[in-house]
Amino acid sequence: MNHMDQTKLQTLKGFRDFLPQEARKRQYAIAKIVEVFEYYGFDPLETPTLEYQGVLLGKYGAEADKLVFKFEDEGGRKVALRYDQTVPVARVLAQYGQELPMPFKRYQIQSAFRAEKPQKGRFREFLQCDIDIVGANPPLPDAEILAVLFNVYQNLGVKNFKIKINDRKDLFALLAKAGVPKDKELRATQIIDKLDKAGDEKVRAMLSQATNPDVASSVLKLLSNNPTPSPELEAISGKAFKLGVPEDCLTFSPYLARGLDYYTGLIMEGVIDGYEGGSVFGGGRFDQLIGQLSGGKVDLPAVGVSIGIDRTVAALDSLKLLPESKTAAQVLVTIFDSELADASLALATTLRDNGLKVELYPSLSTKLDKQLKFADKKGIPFVLIIGAKEAQTKTATLKNMASGDQQTLPLDKLADVIKS
Amino acid sequence: MNHMDQTKLQTLKGFRDFLPQEARKRQYAIAKIVEVFEYYGFDPLETPTLEYQGVLLGKYGAEADKLVFKFEDEGGRKVALRYDQTVPVARVLAQYGQELPMPFKRYQIQSAFRAEKPQKGRFREFLQCDIDIVGANPPLPDAEILAVLFNVYQNLGVKNFKIKINDRKDLFALLAKAGVPKDKELRATQIIDKLDKAGDEKVRAMLSQATNPDVASSVLKLLSNNPTPSPELEAISGKAFKLGVPEDCLTFSPYLARGLDYYTGLIMEGVIDGYEGGSVFGGGRFDQLIGQLSGGKVDLPAVGVSIGIDRTVAALDSLKLLPESKTAAQVLVTIFDSELADASLALATTLRDNGLKVELYPSLSTKLDKQLKFADKKGIPFVLIIGAKEAQTKTATLKNMASGDQQTLPLDKLADVIKS
Repeated sequence: MNHMDQTKLQTLKGFRDFLPQEARKRQYAIAKIVEVFEYYGFDPLETPTLEYQGVLLGKYGAEADKLVFKFEDEGGRKVALRYDQTVPVARVLAQYGQELPMPFKRYQIQSAFRAEKPQKGRFREFLQCDIDIVGANPPLPDAEILAVLFNVYQNLGVKNFKIKINDRKDLFALLAKAGVPKDKELRATQIIDKLDKAGDEKVRAMLSQATNPDVASSVLKLLSNNPTPSPELEAISGKAFKLGVPEDCLTFSPYLARGLDYYTGLIMEGVIDGYEGGSVFGGGRFDQLIGQLSGGKVDLPAVGVSIGIDRTVAALDSLKLLPESKTAAQVLVTIFDSELADASLALATTLRDNGLKVELYPSLSTKLDKQLKFADKKGIPFVLIIGAKEAQTKTATLKNMASGDQQTLPLDKLADVIKS
Repeated sequence: MNHMDQTKLQTLKGFRDFLPQEARKRQYAIAKIVEVFEYYGFDPLETPTLEYQGVLLGKYGAEADKLVFKFEDEGGRKVALRYDQTVPVARVLAQYGQELPMPFKRYQIQSAFRAEKPQKGRFREFLQCDIDIVGANPPLPDAEILAVLFNVYQNLGVKNFKIKINDRKDLFALLAKAGVPKDKELRATQIIDKLDKAGDEKVRAMLSQATNPDVASSVLKLLSNNPTPSPELEAISGKAFKLGVPEDCLTFSPYLARGLDYYTGLIMEGVIDGYEGGSVFGGGRFDQLIGQLSGGKVDLPAVGVSIGIDRTVAALDSLKLLPESKTAAQVLVTIFDSELADASLALATTLRDNGLKVELYPSLSTKLDKQLKFADKKGIPFVLIIGAKEAQTKTATLKNMASGDQQTLPLDKLADVIKS
């Protein structure tokens, strides 16, 4: 038959397998996140992995376009892999128009693909988890997004986390006042975004290079004058508090700039105390993007956020907030031998009917010792054994894999003991 | 800015958007299916969308290889999109080897991509939902797969459905006895698979063409002699009954052949009474495939099934077994005007704390009439209004959108009334 090139039995660089234990962690986090989305009236949307290149290219900027995975299919169509979930949602809004209720709220959790140089924490396929409210102006939708985020991390068990907020308009006004020319505005915001990490002097040097030393000084002086939140930001925060966000969760961060060009108002970023891997979500208001993306077919204000699943799971892991179990199975029902197997099958069935997650060892002729090792390796906390004696007395022996304790119990008591 | 080609604001042929209502149906079905998988000790596995072409090509047959989406990435790597979930799992088994517990049970729910001619019910991107038990011989894992399938459709509310089963080895033995040459064996099984739909005479003609008229007569004669299930099939059924599968759910179908070449033992197919769209799942035992796929690196027996999500959702839809709600939101809290808004925000927050899924209308200045139309279009069953009078008396007016009934209730009674 066909022989595979041995050297190729591997994943592509920047792409990942999620083996069961890791996949379970991600599914746990996603389920908790989606639960909150639904409490806030967000419904799911799914778009295809492949789109016409014409839909995606020319929207993200020239540098990003280089990172889009693109090819010609067998039918000669120029196609591309999903790069984010914002352009596809703009296409959906343009394509289905009046069919969709407006304001339109959706969540979307799908892979995005970027041909970036793989490095620590940066992958070529990664899961994006976005919510957006389209077709409504501040402050209410912006405040709802903040409330969703607070509740998402509450639901995940994260106690100490902050949402940094700022208003892009204020930042632009400050830059204009300092004399930054319009065409250097985005470059200057990106430099200011580094103030926290790089410090004043480095930022001064970068700003000087991008503009000139006088303008750089002027920017830093204005920033050091303790800017206050804009009335719009105050209104958004006020509504967020009414929606249950605690005051100390929102932090006004006048240096916060966010990397993406398209934000027009509120910008936000989430940081978890005790997790050093960077912000776990980022987003903001983008009132012009959908109009641009749809070629003017629909022109709608929007606000949204993208939750980083990789970082959020890493943070939960480091804070020990993920379920410890390596498998869904709560108990392994072993098979003593082929003659006694049916008693094990009946027991597995009864336990499942009683709401337990049961793995049945799928072989009639494997030594018990090997079955116990299997339970240990898979991380199944309990093991049940029905040997000849147990079969005669309608009992089973329950072994706690962590403590090694064993007890022989009547069949009808087992479910309760395992559950407790 | 960039202008998009208007003609391209559409999905590629054979690819689909799932707007919220449709996406919710699919997620409902998937959640019910996964729930059962976990009761049987299956854990999730995820593999990348892109693989080296060398991993995928040469495994499915020459015709199928033509349908693999393939291209060269910017780094000159020959890559391909996931075509199924069996070859990737074979790679995982070869790549991670001893890390994985064996027998290995996993479920996997991801998109597969095939460049087929789009037609009714056939798509170029579709969701596959597979379970497999690798590394164990019949009858136990085969019986477990049957038990999972029975319980999956029970959990989805499907009362009348059957699992057709057969043994590929019996079919091959019958063909050999009838004089079908070895190299015509797979072609003959594909023809026999059509007996139910095409009838005796058409099948006779096709078999005659594939072999000769004598052999064709001989095959049909042997099939009409009421073949009985093999001892292996009897053993599998017997264990499935012990695992709670009702006797009338399993139907021995001596003509069942399944299209795929690689089955070596049990083959199975699920049909739902009252749904004419074809089988909703199909699978079987494939004891040689993983050895072949992994280039001999791992050689393991396996049995599994692929549940067709598209067909299963279509069947549930036609049997009215899907939740009727168009949105997760149970109630829309309207905003009467900007002065009264905070009362609505507080109410939305309280209701969410009480476990209700609440949509808050995200605008401070939209006419109430338009907000009600929005609730109607989105399918939200209840609407709450706090006007000046309600705000004064700490009440809200609850409108049932289906009946049009309205009642004004104290704020602390609302959650219970909506829940009931």
